[in-house]
Amino acid sequence: MTQATERDGSAAPGPAPAVVLVRPQLGQNIGMAARAMANFALSDLRLVAPRDGWPNPEAGPAAAGADHVLDGARVAASVAEAAADCHLLLATTVRPRDSRLAVLTPAEAAAEIRRRAARGERTALLFGPERSGLTADDMAAAHAIVTCPVNPGFGSLNLAQAVLVLAYEWFLAEGAAAAAGGAAAVQPETDRAGVAEVDGLFRQLDAALNACGYYHPPERAPAMRRTIAGILARALLSAQDVRTLRGVVAALARGPRG
Amino acid sequence: MTQATERDGSAAPGPAPAVVLVRPQLGQNIGMAARAMANFALSDLRLVAPRDGWPNPEAGPAAAGADHVLDGARVAASVAEAAADCHLLLATTVRPRDSRLAVLTPAEAAAEIRRRAARGERTALLFGPERSGLTADDMAAAHAIVTCPVNPGFGSLNLAQAVLVLAYEWFLAEGAAAAAGGAAAVQPETDRAGVAEVDGLFRQLDAALNACGYYHPPERAPAMRRTIAGILARALLSAQDVRTLRGVVAALARGPRG
Repeated sequence: MTQATERDGSAAPGPAPAVVLVRPQLGQNIGMAARAMANFALSDLRLVAPRDGWPNPEAGPAAAGADHVLDGARVAASVAEAAADCHLLLATTVRPRDSRLAVLTPAEAAAEIRRRAARGERTALLFGPERSGLTADDMAAAHAIVTCPVNPGFGSLNLAQAVLVLAYEWFLAEGAAAAAGGAAAVQPETDRAGVAEVDGLFRQLDAALNACGYYHPPERAPAMRRTIAGILARALLSAQDVRTLRGVVAALARGPRG
Repeated sequence: MTQATERDGSAAPGPAPAVVLVRPQLGQNIGMAARAMANFALSDLRLVAPRDGWPNPEAGPAAAGADHVLDGARVAASVAEAAADCHLLLATTVRPRDSRLAVLTPAEAAAEIRRRAARGERTALLFGPERSGLTADDMAAAHAIVTCPVNPGFGSLNLAQAVLVLAYEWFLAEGAAAAAGGAAAVQPETDRAGVAEVDGLFRQLDAALNACGYYHPPERAPAMRRTIAGILARALLSAQDVRTLRGVVAALARGPRG
Protein backbone atom coordinates (compact mmCIF):
# COMPACT_ATOMS: atom_id res chain seq x y z
CA MET A 1 0.00 0.00 0.00
CA THR A 2 1.37 3.37 -0.90
CA GLN A 3 0.31 6.84 0.00
CA ALA A 4 0.36 7.73 -3.66
CA THR A 5 -2.45 5.28 -4.27
CA GLU A 6 -4.44 6.69 -1.41
CA ARG A 7 -3.85 10.22 -2.46
CA ASP A 8 -4.96 10.31 -6.02
CA GLY A 9 -6.17 6.87 -6.98
CA SER A 10 -3.61 6.54 -9.76
CA ALA A 11 -1.67 3.38 -10.32
CA ALA A 12 0.90 3.09 -7.59
CA PRO A 13 4.42 4.17 -8.58
CA GLY A 14 5.74 1.74 -5.99
CA PRO A 15 6.32 1.78 -2.28
CA ALA A 16 6.83 5.11 -0.52
CA PRO A 17 9.95 5.24 1.64
CA ALA A 18 9.89 4.42 5.33
CA VAL A 19 11.22 7.04 7.74
CA VAL A 20 13.33 5.36 10.43
CA LEU A 21 14.15 7.51 13.44
CA VAL A 22 17.07 5.96 15.28
CA ARG A 23 17.03 6.47 19.05
CA PRO A 24 14.96 9.68 18.90
CA GLN A 25 15.07 11.60 22.15
CA LEU A 26 12.12 14.00 22.33
CA GLY A 27 8.52 13.05 21.70
CA GLN A 28 7.96 16.53 20.34
CA ASN A 29 10.51 15.92 17.61
CA ILE A 30 8.88 12.61 16.70
CA GLY A 31 5.57 14.44 16.38
CA MET A 32 7.05 17.19 14.24
CA ALA A 33 8.72 14.61 12.03
CA ALA A 34 5.33 12.89 11.62
CA ARG A 35 3.77 16.19 10.61
CA ALA A 36 6.52 16.80 8.06
CA MET A 37 5.92 13.31 6.65
CA ALA A 38 2.16 13.82 6.40
CA ASN A 39 2.62 17.12 4.59
CA PHE A 40 4.35 15.26 1.82
CA ALA A 41 2.26 12.10 1.83
CA LEU A 42 4.62 9.81 3.72
CA SER A 43 3.15 7.61 6.45
CA ASP A 44 5.50 4.71 7.20
CA LEU A 45 7.23 5.73 10.45
CA ARG A 46 9.54 3.35 12.30
CA LEU A 47 11.26 4.05 15.60
CA VAL A 48 14.44 2.34 16.72
CA ALA A 49 14.74 2.30 20.50
CA PRO A 50 13.06 5.65 21.23
CA ARG A 51 14.67 7.01 24.38
CA ASP A 52 11.44 7.63 26.28
CA GLY A 53 9.55 4.58 25.05
CA TRP A 54 6.53 4.53 22.81
CA PRO A 55 3.85 5.82 22.66
CA ASN A 56 5.08 9.19 23.89
CA PRO A 57 2.43 11.68 25.06
CA GLU A 58 4.44 14.64 23.78
CA ALA A 59 4.36 13.42 20.19
CA GLY A 60 0.66 13.90 19.50
CA PRO A 61 0.35 17.65 20.09
CA ALA A 62 3.43 18.32 17.95
CA ALA A 63 2.08 16.22 15.10
CA ALA A 64 -0.68 18.78 14.43
CA GLY A 65 -3.13 16.22 13.13
CA ALA A 66 -0.75 13.64 11.68
CA ASP A 67 -2.12 11.10 14.13
CA HIS A 68 -2.36 8.39 11.47
CA VAL A 69 1.42 8.50 11.13
CA LEU A 70 2.00 8.20 14.88
CA ASP A 71 -0.66 5.53 15.31
CA GLY A 72 0.94 3.43 12.61
CA ALA A 73 4.50 3.82 13.92
CA ARG A 74 6.35 0.59 14.56
CA VAL A 75 9.06 0.18 17.16
CA ALA A 76 12.15 -1.94 16.56
CA ALA A 77 15.24 -2.75 18.58
CA SER A 78 17.77 -2.17 15.81
CA VAL A 79 18.17 -0.61 12.39
CA ALA A 80 18.39 -4.08 10.88
CA GLU A 81 15.06 -5.03 12.42
CA ALA A 82 13.39 -1.75 11.52
CA ALA A 83 14.45 -1.98 7.89
CA ALA A 84 14.25 -5.75 7.47
CA ASP A 85 11.88 -5.52 4.49
CA CYS A 86 13.80 -2.74 2.72
CA HIS A 87 16.18 -3.05 -0.21
CA LEU A 88 17.80 0.36 -0.06
CA LEU A 89 18.98 2.08 3.12
CA LEU A 90 19.87 5.74 2.89
CA ALA A 91 21.55 7.22 5.95
CA THR A 92 21.09 10.95 6.48
CA THR A 93 24.03 12.84 7.92
CA VAL A 94 24.82 16.49 8.40
CA ARG A 95 28.17 15.99 6.79
CA PRO A 96 29.54 13.04 4.81
CA ARG A 97 31.04 10.60 7.28
CA ASP A 98 32.21 7.61 5.28
CA SER A 99 33.93 8.24 2.01
CA ARG A 100 33.29 4.63 1.00
CA LEU A 101 29.61 5.35 0.47
CA ALA A 102 28.16 7.47 -2.28
CA VAL A 103 26.92 10.82 -1.02
CA LEU A 104 23.60 11.93 -2.50
CA THR A 105 21.75 15.21 -2.31
CA PRO A 106 18.12 15.02 -1.18
CA ALA A 107 17.00 15.43 -4.80
CA GLU A 108 19.33 12.65 -5.97
CA ALA A 109 18.10 10.43 -3.16
CA ALA A 110 14.48 11.11 -4.14
CA ALA A 111 15.20 10.14 -7.73
CA GLU A 112 16.92 6.94 -6.64
CA ILE A 113 14.00 6.07 -4.33
CA ARG A 114 11.62 6.56 -7.25
CA ARG A 115 13.71 4.36 -9.53
CA ARG A 116 13.83 1.59 -6.95
CA ALA A 117 10.13 1.94 -6.12
CA ALA A 118 9.25 1.50 -9.78
CA ARG A 119 10.88 -1.92 -9.52
CA GLY A 120 8.94 -2.71 -6.37
CA GLU A 121 11.89 -2.13 -4.04
CA ARG A 122 11.43 -0.57 -0.61
CA THR A 123 13.60 2.20 0.78
CA ALA A 124 14.29 3.29 4.33
CA LEU A 125 15.56 6.76 5.20
CA LEU A 126 17.57 6.65 8.43
CA PHE A 127 17.73 9.66 10.74
CA GLY A 128 19.96 9.68 13.81
CA PRO A 129 19.36 10.99 17.32
CA GLU A 130 18.93 14.72 17.73
CA ARG A 131 22.32 15.52 19.23
CA SER A 132 24.69 12.93 17.97
CA GLY A 133 23.42 11.66 14.63
CA LEU A 134 23.89 8.15 13.32
CA THR A 135 26.80 6.09 14.59
CA ALA A 136 29.06 4.02 12.39
CA ASP A 137 27.18 0.95 13.59
CA ASP A 138 23.85 2.48 12.59
CA MET A 139 25.23 3.09 9.12
CA ALA A 140 26.92 -0.28 8.65
CA ALA A 141 24.11 -1.60 6.46
CA ALA A 142 23.52 1.67 4.59
CA HIS A 143 23.92 1.75 0.84
CA ALA A 144 24.46 5.47 0.52
CA ILE A 145 24.54 8.70 2.50
CA VAL A 146 22.18 11.60 1.99
CA THR A 147 23.47 14.99 2.99
CA CYS A 148 21.45 18.15 2.68
CA PRO A 149 23.49 21.11 1.49
CA VAL A 150 23.34 23.73 4.23
CA ASN A 151 25.02 26.97 5.19
CA PRO A 152 28.46 25.82 6.36
CA GLY A 153 28.54 28.74 8.77
CA PHE A 154 25.42 27.58 10.62
CA GLY A 155 24.11 24.18 9.57
CA SER A 156 21.91 22.93 12.36
CA LEU A 157 18.99 21.26 10.61
CA ASN A 158 17.00 19.61 13.33
CA LEU A 159 15.40 16.20 13.06
CA ALA A 160 12.02 17.36 11.77
CA GLN A 161 13.62 19.81 9.35
CA ALA A 162 15.77 17.04 7.89
CA VAL A 163 12.71 14.80 7.53
CA LEU A 164 10.87 17.69 5.90
CA VAL A 165 13.51 18.28 3.24
CA LEU A 166 13.71 14.60 2.31
CA ALA A 167 9.91 14.21 2.26
CA TYR A 168 9.55 17.37 0.17
CA GLU A 169 12.04 16.15 -2.41
CA TRP A 170 10.37 12.76 -2.55
CA PHE A 171 7.00 14.42 -3.11
CA LEU A 172 8.46 16.60 -5.87
CA ALA A 173 10.00 13.57 -7.52
CA GLU A 174 6.59 11.91 -7.53
CA GLY A 175 5.16 14.89 -9.32
CA ALA A 176 8.00 14.75 -11.81
CA ALA A 177 7.40 11.05 -12.39
CA ALA A 178 3.68 11.63 -12.90
CA ALA A 179 4.37 14.51 -15.26
CA ALA A 180 6.76 12.30 -17.21
CA GLY A 181 3.89 10.09 -18.26
CA GLY A 182 2.20 8.73 -15.19
CA ALA A 183 2.50 5.23 -13.92
CA ALA A 184 4.69 3.37 -16.34
CA ALA A 185 4.31 -0.37 -16.63
CA VAL A 186 5.68 -2.02 -13.56
CA GLN A 187 9.12 -3.40 -14.22
CA PRO A 188 9.74 -7.06 -13.50
CA GLU A 189 10.55 -7.58 -9.86
CA THR A 190 14.20 -7.76 -9.17
CA ASP A 191 15.49 -10.43 -6.91
CA ARG A 192 17.46 -7.93 -4.81
CA ALA A 193 18.13 -9.28 -1.34
CA GLY A 194 16.45 -7.46 1.50
CA VAL A 195 18.24 -6.12 4.55
CA ALA A 196 17.16 -9.10 6.65
CA GLU A 197 18.66 -11.58 4.19
CA VAL A 198 21.97 -9.72 3.98
CA ASP A 199 21.98 -9.42 7.75
CA GLY A 200 21.47 -13.17 8.06
CA LEU A 201 24.45 -13.78 5.80
CA PHE A 202 26.52 -11.34 7.82
CA ARG A 203 25.62 -13.03 11.10
CA GLN A 204 26.52 -16.44 9.75
CA LEU A 205 29.86 -15.16 8.46
CA ASP A 206 30.47 -13.26 11.69
CA ALA A 207 29.96 -16.41 13.79
CA ALA A 208 32.28 -18.40 11.55
CA LEU A 209 34.96 -15.72 11.71
CA ASN A 210 34.63 -15.49 15.44
CA ALA A 211 35.21 -19.23 15.71
CA CYS A 212 38.37 -18.87 13.62
CA GLY A 213 39.86 -16.15 15.78
CA TYR A 214 39.64 -13.67 12.89
CA TYR A 215 38.76 -10.75 15.11
CA HIS A 216 42.14 -9.96 16.49
CA PRO A 217 43.06 -7.90 18.38
CA PRO A 218 39.72 -7.77 20.20
CA GLU A 219 39.58 -3.99 20.36
CA ARG A 220 39.50 -3.82 16.59
CA ALA A 221 36.58 -6.27 16.32
CA PRO A 222 33.81 -3.65 16.09
CA ALA A 223 35.52 -1.82 13.23
CA MET A 224 36.32 -5.10 11.49
CA ARG A 225 32.67 -6.16 11.76
CA ARG A 226 31.50 -2.86 10.33
CA THR A 227 33.90 -3.20 7.42
CA ILE A 228 32.58 -6.61 6.50
CA ALA A 229 28.93 -5.60 6.97
CA GLY A 230 29.58 -2.61 4.74
CA ILE A 231 31.12 -4.74 1.98
CA LEU A 232 28.06 -7.00 2.01
CA ALA A 233 25.64 -4.06 2.05
CA ARG A 234 27.30 -2.38 -0.92
CA ALA A 235 27.64 -5.57 -2.95
CA LEU A 236 24.11 -5.32 -4.43
CA LEU A 237 23.48 -8.98 -3.74
CA SER A 238 20.43 -10.77 -5.07
CA ALA A 239 18.51 -13.15 -2.87
CA GLN A 240 20.12 -15.99 -4.86
CA ASP A 241 23.58 -14.46 -4.31
CA VAL A 242 22.91 -14.51 -0.58
CA ARG A 243 21.94 -18.17 -0.70
CA THR A 244 25.10 -18.96 -2.68
CA LEU A 245 27.32 -17.08 -0.27
CA ARG A 246 25.69 -18.74 2.72
CA GLY A 247 26.63 -22.06 1.14
CA VAL A 248 30.15 -20.78 0.58
CA VAL A 249 30.54 -19.68 4.18
CA ALA A 250 29.08 -22.94 5.47
CA ALA A 251 31.48 -24.95 3.33
CA LEU A 252 34.50 -22.96 4.45
CA ALA A 253 33.44 -23.11 8.08
CA ARG A 254 33.00 -26.87 7.83
CA GLY A 255 36.59 -27.13 6.67
CA PRO A 256 38.53 -29.55 4.47
CA ARG A 257 37.08 -32.99 3.92
CA GLY A 258 38.94 -36.20 4.34
CA MET B 1 25.57 42.67 1.66
CA THR B 2 24.62 39.13 0.89
CA GLN B 3 25.10 35.95 2.82
CA ALA B 4 26.53 34.40 -0.29
CA THR B 5 29.42 36.82 -0.18
CA GLU B 6 30.05 36.14 3.46
CA ARG B 7 29.89 32.42 2.97
CA ASP B 8 32.40 31.76 0.27
CA GLY B 9 34.02 35.00 -0.70
CA SER B 10 33.01 34.56 -4.32
CA ALA B 11 31.65 37.37 -6.40
CA ALA B 12 28.25 38.22 -5.02
CA PRO B 13 25.42 36.75 -7.05
CA GLY B 14 23.27 39.63 -5.88
CA PRO B 15 21.10 40.31 -2.88
CA ALA B 16 19.66 37.41 -0.90
CA PRO B 17 15.90 37.60 -0.41
CA ALA B 18 14.32 39.13 2.66
CA VAL B 19 11.91 37.01 4.67
CA VAL B 20 8.90 39.08 5.71
CA LEU B 21 6.68 37.56 8.39
CA VAL B 22 3.34 39.31 8.35
CA ARG B 23 1.61 39.58 11.76
CA PRO B 24 3.36 36.50 13.20
CA GLN B 25 1.69 35.27 16.36
CA LEU B 26 4.12 33.09 18.32
CA GLY B 27 7.65 34.06 19.22
CA GLN B 28 8.59 30.41 18.98
CA ASN B 29 7.60 30.36 15.33
CA ILE B 30 9.63 33.47 14.63
CA GLY B 31 12.62 31.78 16.23
CA MET B 32 12.14 28.59 14.23
CA ALA B 33 11.80 30.60 11.04
CA ALA B 34 15.08 32.35 11.87
CA ARG B 35 16.74 29.00 12.37
CA ALA B 36 15.43 27.76 9.02
CA MET B 37 16.78 30.91 7.37
CA ALA B 38 20.22 30.55 8.95
CA ASN B 39 20.45 26.92 7.84
CA PHE B 40 20.27 28.11 4.27
CA ALA B 41 22.29 31.29 4.60
CA LEU B 42 19.46 33.81 4.72
CA SER B 43 19.67 36.57 7.31
CA ASP B 44 17.38 39.43 6.33
CA LEU B 45 14.31 39.02 8.56
CA ARG B 46 11.54 41.61 8.65
CA LEU B 47 8.47 41.50 10.88
CA VAL B 48 5.21 43.25 10.07
CA ALA B 49 3.22 44.06 13.22
CA PRO B 50 4.21 41.02 15.28
CA ARG B 51 1.28 40.23 17.57
CA ASP B 52 3.27 40.13 20.79
CA GLY B 53 5.66 42.95 19.96
CA TRP B 54 9.38 42.74 19.41
CA PRO B 55 11.76 41.54 20.74
CA ASN B 56 9.91 38.43 21.92
CA PRO B 57 11.63 36.35 24.62
CA GLU B 58 10.28 33.11 23.19
CA ALA B 59 12.02 33.60 19.86
CA GLY B 60 15.62 33.16 21.04
CA PRO B 61 15.43 29.64 22.43
CA ALA B 62 13.63 28.41 19.29
CA ALA B 63 16.25 29.96 17.02
CA ALA B 64 18.87 27.46 18.22
CA GLY B 65 21.75 29.81 17.67
CA ALA B 66 20.43 31.94 14.83
CA ASP B 67 20.68 34.96 17.07
CA HIS B 68 22.24 37.08 14.35
CA VAL B 69 19.01 36.73 12.35
CA LEU B 70 16.81 37.75 15.28
CA ASP B 71 19.13 40.58 16.33
CA GLY B 72 19.02 42.00 12.84
CA ALA B 73 15.25 41.74 12.45
CA ARG B 74 13.48 44.95 11.50
CA VAL B 75 9.91 45.73 12.47
CA ALA B 76 7.51 47.52 10.11
CA ALA B 77 3.89 48.55 10.31
CA SER B 78 2.88 47.28 6.89
CA VAL B 79 4.01 45.04 4.04
CA ALA B 80 4.65 48.11 1.93
CA GLU B 81 6.96 49.56 4.57
CA ALA B 82 8.71 46.26 5.21
CA ALA B 83 9.43 45.67 1.55
CA ALA B 84 9.99 49.25 0.50
CA ASP B 85 13.45 48.56 -0.94
CA CYS B 86 12.44 45.40 -2.80
CA HIS B 87 11.76 44.97 -6.49
CA LEU B 88 9.98 41.64 -6.42
CA LEU B 89 7.39 40.56 -3.85
CA LEU B 90 6.52 36.89 -3.72
CA ALA B 91 3.55 35.98 -1.53
CA THR B 92 3.52 32.46 -0.11
CA THR B 93 0.15 30.74 0.22
CA VAL B 94 -0.95 27.24 1.02
CA ARG B 95 -3.20 27.26 -2.01
CA PRO B 96 -3.36 29.70 -4.91
CA ARG B 97 -5.69 32.50 -3.91
CA ASP B 98 -5.63 35.04 -6.71
CA SER B 99 -5.84 33.85 -10.26
CA ARG B 100 -4.56 37.20 -11.49
CA LEU B 101 -1.08 36.39 -10.24
CA ALA B 102 1.33 33.82 -11.59
CA VAL B 103 1.71 30.82 -9.29
CA LEU B 104 5.26 29.58 -8.87
CA THR B 105 6.66 26.48 -7.21
CA PRO B 106 9.38 27.09 -4.62
CA ALA B 107 12.00 26.02 -7.17
CA GLU B 108 10.60 28.38 -9.80
CA ALA B 109 10.55 31.16 -7.23
CA ALA B 110 14.17 30.47 -6.32
CA ALA B 111 15.20 30.65 -9.96
CA GLU B 112 13.34 33.93 -10.41
CA ILE B 113 14.96 35.37 -7.28
CA ARG B 114 18.37 34.43 -8.66
CA ARG B 115 17.64 36.03 -12.01
CA ARG B 116 16.53 39.25 -10.38
CA ALA B 117 19.42 39.24 -7.93
CA ALA B 118 21.87 38.94 -10.79
CA ARG B 119 20.51 42.27 -11.99
CA GLY B 120 20.88 43.71 -8.49
CA GLU B 121 17.17 43.54 -7.67
CA ARG B 122 15.94 42.73 -4.18
CA THR B 123 13.23 40.19 -3.43
CA ALA B 124 10.94 39.82 -0.43
CA LEU B 125 9.23 36.56 0.44
CA LEU B 126 5.98 37.22 2.31
CA PHE B 127 4.63 34.74 4.83
CA GLY B 128 1.24 35.22 6.49
CA PRO B 129 0.10 34.70 10.09
CA GLU B 130 0.09 31.13 11.38
CA ARG B 131 -3.64 30.50 11.27
CA SER B 132 -5.05 32.69 8.57
CA GLY B 133 -2.34 33.31 6.00
CA LEU B 134 -1.96 36.48 3.98
CA THR B 135 -5.00 38.63 3.31
CA ALA B 136 -5.87 40.11 -0.05
CA ASP B 137 -4.56 43.43 1.26
CA ASP B 138 -1.25 41.88 2.24
CA MET B 139 -0.92 40.50 -1.27
CA ALA B 140 -1.97 43.64 -3.08
CA ALA B 141 1.59 44.56 -3.96
CA ALA B 142 2.75 41.01 -4.66
CA HIS B 143 4.09 40.18 -8.12
CA ALA B 144 3.51 36.45 -7.91
CA ILE B 145 2.35 33.72 -5.59
CA VAL B 146 4.52 30.87 -4.38
CA THR B 147 2.74 27.69 -3.41
CA CYS B 148 4.51 24.65 -2.13
CA PRO B 149 3.07 21.40 -3.48
CA VAL B 150 1.83 19.39 -0.50
CA ASN B 151 -0.28 16.34 0.21
CA PRO B 152 -3.81 17.55 -0.53
CA GLY B 153 -5.08 15.14 2.10
CA PHE B 154 -3.08 16.80 4.87
CA GLY B 155 -1.31 20.00 3.89
CA SER B 156 -0.52 21.90 7.04
CA LEU B 157 2.92 23.33 6.49
CA ASN B 158 3.56 25.60 9.43
CA LEU B 159 5.28 28.94 9.21
CA ALA B 160 8.81 27.72 9.88
CA GLN B 161 8.37 24.75 7.52
CA ALA B 162 7.25 27.06 4.72
CA VAL B 163 10.25 29.33 5.35
CA LEU B 164 12.50 26.25 5.36
CA VAL B 165 11.31 25.01 1.97
CA LEU B 166 11.74 28.42 0.33
CA ALA B 167 15.15 28.98 1.92
CA TYR B 168 16.27 25.49 0.91
CA GLU B 169 15.27 26.04 -2.70
CA TRP B 170 17.01 29.40 -2.76
CA PHE B 171 20.17 27.81 -1.37
CA LEU B 172 20.01 25.03 -3.97
CA ALA B 173 19.60 27.58 -6.74
CA GLU B 174 22.75 29.28 -5.48
CA GLY B 175 24.59 25.99 -5.58
CA ALA B 176 23.36 25.36 -9.10
CA ALA B 177 24.57 28.80 -10.12
CA ALA B 178 27.97 28.19 -8.54
CA ALA B 179 28.29 24.79 -10.20
CA ALA B 180 27.42 26.30 -13.55
CA GLY B 181 30.22 28.77 -12.94
CA GLY B 182 32.80 26.05 -12.86
CA ALA B 183 33.44 25.47 -9.16
CA ALA B 184 32.66 21.78 -9.38
CA ALA B 185 33.07 19.86 -6.16
CA VAL B 186 35.73 17.23 -6.56
CA GLN B 187 34.46 13.81 -5.74
CA PRO B 188 36.89 11.64 -3.80
CA GLU B 189 38.53 9.11 -6.07
CA THR B 190 37.31 5.63 -5.49
CA ASP B 191 39.78 2.90 -4.90
CA ARG B 192 37.98 0.42 -7.15
CA ALA B 193 39.74 -2.92 -7.33
CA GLY B 194 41.10 -3.98 -10.70
CA VAL B 195 40.13 -7.17 -12.49
CA ALA B 196 43.40 -8.85 -11.48
CA GLU B 197 42.80 -8.16 -7.80
CA VAL B 198 39.25 -9.51 -7.89
CA ASP B 199 40.48 -12.52 -9.82
CA GLY B 200 43.14 -13.14 -7.18
CA LEU B 201 40.45 -13.13 -4.51
CA PHE B 202 38.34 -15.51 -6.57
CA ARG B 203 41.20 -17.94 -7.07
CA GLN B 204 41.98 -17.98 -3.36
CA LEU B 205 38.31 -18.60 -2.54
CA ASP B 206 38.02 -21.22 -5.26
CA ALA B 207 40.97 -23.18 -3.90
CA ALA B 208 39.56 -23.05 -0.38
CA LEU B 209 36.15 -24.19 -1.58
CA ASN B 210 37.70 -26.97 -3.58
CA ALA B 211 39.49 -28.20 -0.48
CA CYS B 212 36.17 -28.24 1.39
CA GLY B 213 34.36 -30.30 -1.16
CA TYR B 214 32.04 -27.40 -1.96
CA TYR B 215 31.87 -28.16 -5.67
CA HIS B 216 29.49 -31.03 -5.61
CA PRO B 217 28.34 -32.73 -7.77
CA PRO B 218 31.42 -32.30 -9.97
CA GLU B 219 29.46 -31.68 -13.16
CA ARG B 220 27.97 -28.54 -11.61
CA ALA B 221 31.37 -27.12 -10.60
CA PRO B 222 31.83 -24.89 -13.68
CA ALA B 223 28.43 -23.21 -13.18
CA MET B 224 29.04 -22.82 -9.44
CA ARG B 225 32.39 -21.19 -10.14
CA ARG B 226 30.83 -18.79 -12.61
CA THR B 227 28.17 -17.86 -10.08
CA ILE B 228 30.73 -16.98 -7.42
CA ALA B 229 32.99 -15.13 -9.85
CA GLY B 230 29.94 -13.15 -10.97
CA ILE B 231 29.00 -12.16 -7.45
CA LEU B 232 32.51 -10.87 -6.81
CA ALA B 233 32.63 -9.02 -10.13
CA ARG B 234 29.30 -7.27 -9.54
CA ALA B 235 30.10 -6.35 -5.94
CA LEU B 236 32.02 -3.21 -6.95
CA LEU B 237 34.77 -4.02 -4.48
CA SER B 238 37.49 -1.56 -3.64
CA ALA B 239 41.10 -2.69 -3.41
CA GLN B 240 40.75 -2.50 0.37
CA ASP B 241 37.58 -4.61 0.24
CA VAL B 242 39.54 -7.24 -1.66
CA ARG B 243 42.28 -7.26 0.98
CA THR B 244 39.66 -7.59 3.71
CA LEU B 245 37.89 -10.44 1.97
CA ARG B 246 41.20 -12.24 1.35
CA GLY B 247 41.77 -12.11 5.09
CA VAL B 248 38.27 -13.43 5.69
CA VAL B 249 38.75 -16.34 3.33
CA ALA B 250 42.15 -17.14 4.81
CA ALA B 251 40.70 -17.15 8.33
CA LEU B 252 37.82 -19.39 7.36
CA ALA B 253 40.08 -21.75 5.43
CA ARG B 254 42.43 -22.00 8.41
CA GLY B 255 39.49 -23.13 10.53
CA PRO B 256 38.63 -22.90 14.20
CA ARG B 257 41.41 -22.26 16.66
CA GLY B 258 42.08 -24.33 19.68
